[in-house]
Amino acid sequence: MASLLLKSTLALELPKINKALTQAHALLPDPVKPVAEHIFKAGGKRLRPFLTVLTGRLLGYDQDAIYRLAITLEMLHAATLLHDDVIDDAPLRRGQPAAHTKFSLTETILAGDALLAMGNAIVAEFNDPMLSSSFSKATSDTCAGEINEIRHQHDPNVSEATYFQIILGKTARLISCACEMGAILAHASKDQISASLAFGENIGIAFQLVDDALDFESEKITGKPTAGDLREGKMTLPVRYYLETLDNKAKEDFLEQFKRGSFTPDACQEIAAKIKDLALDQKTRTCANMYLAKAIDALNTLPDRQEKKLLLAMTDYVRDRKK
Amino acid sequence: MASLLLKSTLALELPKINKALTQAHALLPDPVKPVAEHIFKAGGKRLRPFLTVLTGRLLGYDQDAIYRLAITLEMLHAATLLHDDVIDDAPLRRGQPAAHTKFSLTETILAGDALLAMGNAIVAEFNDPMLSSSFSKATSDTCAGEINEIRHQHDPNVSEATYFQIILGKTARLISCACEMGAILAHASKDQISASLAFGENIGIAFQLVDDALDFESEKITGKPTAGDLREGKMTLPVRYYLETLDNKAKEDFLEQFKRGSFTPDACQEIAAKIKDLALDQKTRTCANMYLAKAIDALNTLPDRQEKKLLLAMTDYVRDRKK
Repeated sequence: MASLLLKSTLALELPKINKALTQAHALLPDPVKPVAEHIFKAGGKRLRPFLTVLTGRLLGYDQDAIYRLAITLEMLHAATLLHDDVIDDAPLRRGQPAAHTKFSLTETILAGDALLAMGNAIVAEFNDPMLSSSFSKATSDTCAGEINEIRHQHDPNVSEATYFQIILGKTARLISCACEMGAILAHASKDQISASLAFGENIGIAFQLVDDALDFESEKITGKPTAGDLREGKMTLPVRYYLETLDNKAKEDFLEQFKRGSFTPDACQEIAAKIKDLALDQKTRTCANMYLAKAIDALNTLPDRQEKKLLLAMTDYVRDRKK
Repeated sequence: MASLLLKSTLALELPKINKALTQAHALLPDPVKPVAEHIFKAGGKRLRPFLTVLTGRLLGYDQDAIYRLAITLEMLHAATLLHDDVIDDAPLRRGQPAAHTKFSLTETILAGDALLAMGNAIVAEFNDPMLSSSFSKATSDTCAGEINEIRHQHDPNVSEATYFQIILGKTARLISCACEMGAILAHASKDQISASLAFGENIGIAFQLVDDALDFESEKITGKPTAGDLREGKMTLPVRYYLETLDNKAKEDFLEQFKRGSFTPDACQEIAAKIKDLALDQKTRTCANMYLAKAIDALNTLPDRQEKKLLLAMTDYVRDRKK
């Protein structure tokens, strides 16, 4: 079965990814090491490094240097999480204390900067301008995605197109870059590099859509408070679908509260219950499936090797994940 | 005269540097544009871009693309200033309101991230792994320098070697990278690239030493409060020299206060007055001159062109500056 194969491969690869992370961590400036360790140990599935490794292997790169490249996006991802921790001022991250609650503002900001700088420096070691270009564009786009998301928080008029732009930036770009960098490292053809990027971009969008659906599913499963996105004024797809079910008066009331950020915890629970009753989380997952189908189309243009099955299994994982 | 030549050249080059900055600024995400504009307009001598342009021209690069490369270090520098603003929580920067007093924490942090990301992306456009490597190493080293400086704030036992490491990281690396990148862009020889880097590194160290001397010179001149470094617990060279003039008891008292950060404004004024009376600011400037001599030695290995006179004039500027 694909998912057993995926799990066992991940079990084999994870120690190599973590070893590369540990080696990089050892070279960070001492004062930020504990912060970086905290964020690396706080969980995370190493999805991005794993995608770089699989894409690189699929396209014929067989050397161990791939692990060092693979961790750069995990470092960039960690950097964004650390700065987000400061910005959001939320107490938890992945169910663990957020970095800024355990470390000072200074340590948290500088650890993010140091991780981003080191990620960049490691990519530059590979002496390939295409890799540096891919990484730096992904960094810019991710940063722009986060900025746009914050800009449109509590904005009742944010369009669906903007919502998709935001998730493309804040989530999908790092994942598409992970796949693109694997392909570039393997010296794949231009078409194969584009297909790898498209695969990553589409599973990235699907990943975020599933995340947005999960936000209205059980708190016990996700470890995050239900409807956290709604509380934070994020107009995600399940919320859009929910709005479509309301009459004009109810819609107006909802948008007014959305704008003011005045939903009570009880109101959030109630909205989450309705979203589940109306199967709007499932409808969001259906939309995610459309992107997964696009990812599979892109994957199908790549060579038939063992890793293709694993990347296919990744689409199942993204589709089925419950937390 | 060299300094007139320098001023008139800078007057000619500055609009081109600022035009490249304006073009890059236009592509930043909208919400962070005002923050970036604030930091770019808050002053700054465009020392780093100017050095890239001069070094590149000296070594034979004659195209306009150099302005686009030159501004990347100004962007990185601005990014570090923005994050410093948040970290230091000081009301002023270069005599102007600090970014975090005019913009939110979120905007200030993300503007720094966006500037760093864009600086990286622009360097990557040049498709030269040596440029990406130079820029990313300078980013890492600068970040490490800042982290080390903060780590040793109010540390009475910080060694002179550590002090020099800190100023190398926090100030000299960006300046050495500015010169190195100009030489790399000009496809200079390995020795010329090293000499350019050495020139930048040494004027960078001298620049910071003069800055540390200026901290004890007049408030009216610098626009910064006198002995600000001492208040912030920074054991700069004038402070080290001052310590050497104290007997054991006085030294112990001083270090205790330094550790606790308990100098009153009056005490600071008094120490600043003593440092000036004992000409310890001048002694620091003498030390800076030693580094400027090293910079000139490095410069002398480079070709005899008009730009060499300008770079030589830069060493005069660094030596003589009063603010």
